[in-house]
Parts: sequence; C-alpha cells; structure tokens
Amino acid sequence: MKFTARPREIGIGLMGLGVVGGGVAKVLSHHAHPLSRKAGSPIKLKKVLVRDIAKPRSLLLPHGLLTTDSQDILADPEVQIVVEVMGGEDPATQYIHQALSSGKHVVTANKEVMAKHGPELTALASTQKVNLLFEASVGGGIPIIGPLMKDLLANDIRSIHAIINGTTNYILTRMARDRVDFHEGLKEAQAQGYAEADPTNDIDGIDAAYKLAVLATLAFHTRVHATEVYREGISRLQPQDFRYAQELGYAIKLLAIATKVGDGEKGQGKSPLPPPTVPHLYVRVHPSFVPQEHMLAKVDGVLNAVEVEGDLIGRVLFHGMGAGREPTTSAVIGDVLEIARKIVSGSEPVPATELDEHLIIAPMSGLMSKYYLRLNVADRAGVLAQIATILGDLNISIASVIQKDTDPATQTAEIVVTTHPAREDAMQESLKRMERLKAVREVNNLVRIEDWSSK
Amino acid sequence: MKFTARPREIGIGLMGLGVVGGGVAKVLSHHAHPLSRKAGSPIKLKKVLVRDIAKPRSLLLPHGLLTTDSQDILADPEVQIVVEVMGGEDPATQYIHQALSSGKHVVTANKEVMAKHGPELTALASTQKVNLLFEASVGGGIPIIGPLMKDLLANDIRSIHAIINGTTNYILTRMARDRVDFHEGLKEAQAQGYAEADPTNDIDGIDAAYKLAVLATLAFHTRVHATEVYREGISRLQPQDFRYAQELGYAIKLLAIATKVGDGEKGQGKSPLPPPTVPHLYVRVHPSFVPQEHMLAKVDGVLNAVEVEGDLIGRVLFHGMGAGREPTTSAVIGDVLEIARKIVSGSEPVPATELDEHLIIAPMSGLMSKYYLRLNVADRAGVLAQIATILGDLNISIASVIQKDTDPATQTAEIVVTTHPAREDAMQESLKRMERLKAVREVNNLVRIEDWSSK
Repeated sequence: MKFTARPREIGIGLMGLGVVGGGVAKVLSHHAHPLSRKAGSPIKLKKVLVRDIAKPRSLLLPHGLLTTDSQDILADPEVQIVVEVMGGEDPATQYIHQALSSGKHVVTANKEVMAKHGPELTALASTQKVNLLFEASVGGGIPIIGPLMKDLLANDIRSIHAIINGTTNYILTRMARDRVDFHEGLKEAQAQGYAEADPTNDIDGIDAAYKLAVLATLAFHTRVHATEVYREGISRLQPQDFRYAQELGYAIKLLAIATKVGDGEKGQGKSPLPPPTVPHLYVRVHPSFVPQEHMLAKVDGVLNAVEVEGDLIGRVLFHGMGAGREPTTSAVIGDVLEIARKIVSGSEPVPATELDEHLIIAPMSGLMSKYYLRLNVADRAGVLAQIATILGDLNISIASVIQKDTDPATQTAEIVVTTHPAREDAMQESLKRMERLKAVREVNNLVRIEDWSSK
Repeated sequence: MKFTARPREIGIGLMGLGVVGGGVAKVLSHHAHPLSRKAGSPIKLKKVLVRDIAKPRSLLLPHGLLTTDSQDILADPEVQIVVEVMGGEDPATQYIHQALSSGKHVVTANKEVMAKHGPELTALASTQKVNLLFEASVGGGIPIIGPLMKDLLANDIRSIHAIINGTTNYILTRMARDRVDFHEGLKEAQAQGYAEADPTNDIDGIDAAYKLAVLATLAFHTRVHATEVYREGISRLQPQDFRYAQELGYAIKLLAIATKVGDGEKGQGKSPLPPPTVPHLYVRVHPSFVPQEHMLAKVDGVLNAVEVEGDLIGRVLFHGMGAGREPTTSAVIGDVLEIARKIVSGSEPVPATELDEHLIIAPMSGLMSKYYLRLNVADRAGVLAQIATILGDLNISIASVIQKDTDPATQTAEIVVTTHPAREDAMQESLKRMERLKAVREVNNLVRIEDWSSK
C-alpha cells in the first residue's frame, strides 16, 4: 500500500519515564525509522511527563522533551496518542480520562487503572470514537488482551488459569527446587530486583487480582471488580508443602483463576447441595496444586502464562516474559502501532464488546474443589478416625491420607489429607471442627487442588 | 455502544462443508444469537457451497442453503463475507480472488493458498478496501497470525520455532514414549484419524512448510515461498534415536524454524568462513533435538505450539490444539466476528504491513548448527580415530562420542556423535567422507540439535 499524499506525523505524549517509560522512550526515539515504516507514517515522541526534570538519566533524549506539566501533553493538539506508563491509580486515571475526553487515543500499561476503571474508560473511548488499548496491563509483552478481545471472541469462555505475577512465581520456583523457605525466597527475589522493598502487592496476590479482574471482564463480558476477587497470598506455604506436593504429583503455583459454572456445565463432584443453575463466576487468586504434567506446572521463575479454555478452542496457553522493560515496551509499542496504522488508514475505532452478560460473582462458599490439608496432630491412635469422621459428617470424601514426619520428642505427627471434590464451605467448617479436637495441634495449611481432568 | 438505527444483516457465504466447514456451519446456524450480539448486528449464513447436495449429512441446515454453484455465493450482493474452508489450491484461490475483486471480505483457513498466493491476495484486499483474514490457516485455533501482525509488530523478530503439524507430533510422541517404530506410529495415527490414508503431506513436512511460509512472511516482512523452505520428514527416525536423544537430554520434534541472521547478530560458533553480513533467513522443517527443559519439548500428542523470539519480547510461546473441527472453527468465526464488527462500526480495513524487508532466503549450506550423528561401524580399533580425523579436517568440533550397542554377531557397533556448532556444508561433506570409509557400514541418521542457549 503506497501513500500518495505525504502522511502526516503522528505525535506521541509519554506519561512516565520509569522502567517501562524508559524502554518506550528509547524505542520511540532510537527506532523511529523502522516504527514509522511499520506504521506507514512518521511517529514522533513529542513530550515526556516526569516528576523531576533534573534527575540524572542514562537515556539521552532531545532537549526540551521532558516536562513536569501534564497539560503540555493533554492540551497539545499535536499529541494524538497518549501513552500512560506512570502506574498507580491517581493521577493516571484522571489523565487518561482527560486524554480520551479531548479526543486523544490512549495506550496504557496500568493494570490498577484498568481493573478499577477499565469499563468506564472503555465506554468513554467508544463515545469519543478513539482507541483505548491496554495490552501491556496484563502479562507484560505476552499477547493476551488482543487474543481475548478478537481471536477468541467466537468462544464461550469457560475458564482462565493464569500465572500472572512473576515475583511470586520466582519465589515458589525457588521454594520447590531448592527447598528454601518463604522468607529466604522473598529475600532472594528482592536481591534479584524481582520483588520490591514492600512486597505486599505481589505476595498477597493484589497485583494478580488486578490482572485477573481485567482478563475476566474481557473474557466473560461481565464487569469483574478487583475487590470481588478472592485472594490468598503465598506466605503460608512451607517447605514440606512442596515436598508433599511433589510426592503427590503436583507443583504449587499462585494461580489466578476465573471459572464460569452453572451454564450447562455438569456438576462437579458429589456435592450434598445441587449446583446452582444460574450462570456465575468464581474469581480467585490463591496457591494451587497443579498436576505436574500440566503446562502451567512447567512455568518457572519470573515467567508468566495464561491458559484460556473455551467451548471451541479447548485450552490455549500463552507463555512468556510477563514483566520487565523490554517485554512491556513490546506490548505498549504494539498498541501504539495498531492505533497509528488505523489513523493512517482513516479507520474508525471498533468499540469494545459490551459487558452484557451480567454474570453473578459467586462467593467462595459454593466453590467445588479438591483440597490438600496438612495438620499437626498428637501421635496417638484414633486421631485419624476423628478427622475422618469430621470429614465424613460434612460429606467430604477423602482421596488419600498419609501420616508423615512423626516427631518422638513432641509426640506429634504430620498428617496430609487430600480430598475428592468438596464444597468450600464444608471444607472450612471441617477446619473449625478439627481445630477444636484436642489431638489437633495445628491446621498448618489448606491448599486447593486444581483438577482439569474432572472438568 | 448502542445502535440506534436497526443494524443491517451481515450475510455469510460458506465454501466447503467438510470437517471445518461443518463446524463453521453449525456454529453460524445454531449459535446465531450470541454471535450476533458479539458482532453488534445479525449474522446470517446465506449459502453453503458443496460438491454434492444429496450427500447424507448429520448437520441439519435449512432447506435451500446448499448449492453446487460457486456463483450463488460469489455473485450474491447480500453475501458480504466469504468463508473459504474447502482446502487445496484450486479452485479455492480463484474463488478467493473473485470474492475480493467483487468487494467481499474473505476469511480462509487455507494454508496452501496463503503460502502460495497470500501476498498477492493480501495486496488485492488492500486495493479493494476489504479484509482478508486467515487466522485458521496456521495452528488451528491458536491465535498466532493476529499476534504476529499486531501485538508483536513492535519487535524485530529473530526466530520462529514451531510444532505445527499434529500428525507428526503424535507419531513422534508415541515413538518417544512407547518406543514404537515409525511405521507402527504412523499406523496408529491413521487408526486414530490423525493421519490420512496418504500421509505424505504430513510426514514429509509439506504441511508444516506451507504454514512456516505463512508465518515467516508475516514475521519478517519478506515474501517466503513454501518451495524455499528446506524440508526433511520424520521417516528416517528410528527407536534408538529417541533412546539416545533422551540420554543426551533432548526430545525429538519436527520443528518448523525460521531464523534471521547476519543482522547485528553475533556469529554462531567457530566457523572457518566468516558469517554473512547481509541479513538473511533460514527457513526449514526437519526433525530436531530439543532440550528437554525447553517448553517445546513438552508439547505432546496432536498439540501444536509456536515460539516467537523478538528483540523486545524475548521468547513468547503459543500452545494449544492446532487442528480439528472446533479449534479451527474458533479461529474462522473469530475472523468473521472481527470483520462483522468493523462493518458495523464503518471501520475501514487497515492494509497489511508491506513485505518490504526483502531478506535473502539463504541456502542450507551456510547454516550453523549443532548436530547429532548416528553411524553403524565395524567394531574394531581405530574407527573412532578415522571419524574424528574427518570431522577435525573439516573444522567440526566434537562435543561427545559414545559407542553403543555392540553386536558380536555382525561385529558392528553403533557410534553416536554430537558436535559443537558447525557449518551445514562441512557436516554434509563429512558424511560423504565417512561413507567412503571401509569401517563405516552406514550413516544412519543426522539430526540437527536446536540450541537456544548459544543464540
């Protein structure tokens, strides 16, 4: 396709010059020629919003490019695409809102903004007939937002299972491979630059919950708020959990899971209660036992992977670097090019699909899952029978019981129980009852077992 | 986004009602409501081209939908999107050409047509301002065409490594796991319906070469013809190759590989000849040793996977069902919805990026690779020295030599050699020289070892 008229320049305003912003600025300024060729028009970085112009930076940018005034970007008619990579909810949300309102296209890498305000901003973009793209907000450079919105759109999506936090996956990989404990794993992740000084957002699953809210909203055409995502972090996991997991044929991963049930699906397991018949979603982030032969069990270190299951596609997995300067830059610039190419061809934005499924986000109490349970108990006869009775009374069927690591000094033993599919509320009730048993010293851990074969 | 005016119906003409066509027809006719909601406009299957209307079919379609006359679709002004799933070069190419020429959008699952005529048809679509989408032509339902054209566009793509033929991957998986020989593996694949009565297209790598030509053309912005793809099939592999591969830490996979070299890349290995400095491509389909820890080594059975390496993204892997009715239907309907949504929003097609890189497709002779070599030799002193001398004379550095399976009856032994990176032409010359040695009974196999770590 040749352009006879001289194509006009496409102006970019960049907000943020941190790790990702630095990568984006570098590619936009140093690789302008190949990018412009791919776009079909010159692409020009016009302004970069920073907090402190005087801060020393390794990246050399033309004089006058930096500004501390957001209006230098938002009010500049020559800026057609605003790239927001500053992170955090405020003022990023407000800047994106203003950019869209004034008819600018927006590319953002901001998972928090998209999790909290994505649907409103998307609706605003539709009204304004501009594009709002956010491929970089989940999974770094791994294409997942685009495929969910386009390539997989024909599917009735059944589930998402994702490893979308590199920090925790790094720690879990170290714990599994080298049997370090959680605190040592975290310290190493911090030393490697994979975890922040305050690692709460990562290890408590907050970051993963934001990303899951974004993915689930797109996949199920239903607004999913990050606050609706059930969360458990990884700090309860101990080295022996990894040992037992391996013996039982599993890896332990922090999974972000969204599953649609009650929609013509068969009931899972033998619940005493009938499965709900109104389609609803479970959205949750927690450590999970993953069968060793499953591809997600093989995702190690800081890598990310997202598995999507649809009625037509079956299961498709996207795997790669889920964070970091270059991969995230790949996604941001990919979005910039997509918008630039639309501008060049005079192609109107296609509005996002409507969130018209209005699925109910179900409370965890009704979840059907298999479970792994680790208890510290008095090492004497009859304890197993007491535990089995509690589980039996609650209709929880035991898959295996192993007594482990008897300690003659304290006269205690470790008991590992795995169950067949059971209801979450029954399982939680069983824990309460077990804790009341004299022989039970501690309920150490309860981890859900993801079982693809039974679905 | 609400549509105030009554949206017009989008008419679909389907060409072909085989395995994939049946899936597409079923979804279009039985799931019309959810599809129309996603499209923002009613989608209607208007006509289906078949060879024989009277043929008994399990799928119930409205009376009068079937036709044997292609013009009932191509000349019908109410058909806006032609879906071609008949397969084969002719008459599919001609039908697609006519559809585009008369201003219809086209969705095709046809790898052969896209490998042979893709760039011309794409250019025609641009001129006609219509869309030509072909996600289903490679990797079944796995999103790979869309991500390459859009999400990964910011990258300078370095390589593609793909398992894109399910039939051969099924046979190789059986050979590796259960140590069956090639003929037994093939027979089983045929019994399972994974291989056709004449399996040549699959086992000789022709199918994979078509798909690689499509992927490489998009990834490298350079026309790659299927005839330029170097091909070796899987029929030379024997059970002991899988045994030795496993001992050496590898799986054996039929990989479709495209690599760009000579473009600021470091030279690979210690070649006697300097690496070429003009950027060029190697495109090839052949059995490969894949390190067991690499994700591609874990892709088993009929599953497919495509790994793309870019300067920004690093390596990203797409994994899923690469063939079959439902997965392919997912990709076809995904493309239909993308076009329908553009029609509804009045969004002009964005022309494909130009194939303006004009990279040279290099002959295999200059390829740098590690190799695995299996020889049957006379079991006597001095043979190894002769072989080592030949390799040394050609500047091929030996990584390991193992003597295996001595047979006292025939007084022969099997020798397995692995090399450090060497030039393909030197390696081929070494085989000729070895075959001339009296002590060498047979050069049984030469398999390239893919080594990501050295790249």
